Amino acid sequence: MCEANVYMEQNGREDLLLASVDVIEPQADGSLRMVNIFGEQKVVRAAIKCMCLVDHRIVLAP
Amino acid sequence: MCEANVYMEQNGREDLLLASVDVIEPQADGSLRMVNIFGEQKVVRAAIKCMCLVDHRIVLAP
Repeated sequence: MCEANVYMEQNGREDLLLASVDVIEPQADGSLRMVNIFGEQKVVRAAIKCMCLVDHRIVLAP
Repeated sequence: MCEANVYMEQNGREDLLLASVDVIEPQADGSLRMVNIFGEQKVVRAAIKCMCLVDHRIVLAP
């Protein structure tokens, strides 16, 4: 499957925020709504820093 | 492979912008730099509207 793992980069470190993410929807308030293939949902106030889809990696930054 | 097709939504229509995209990097000027698995690159001034990675779909809006 082609979901991606979403990491938050902070202080030079990347922490896994949500694994196996399928849907990402930027919200009007600047947050990001993420839903993974297990139906788990997270909303975070962060920006997408980079996405490497073939590597299943999305890095966010505050 | 887990790249995605990137579409631009405009006037209720979605047009394919770049197929098989691997890397997406938001730039400081608000544009998005996209590179696909064939090395083709596009930079567009647009925002991510939604991403459905399992469906290999990313929709942008101006």
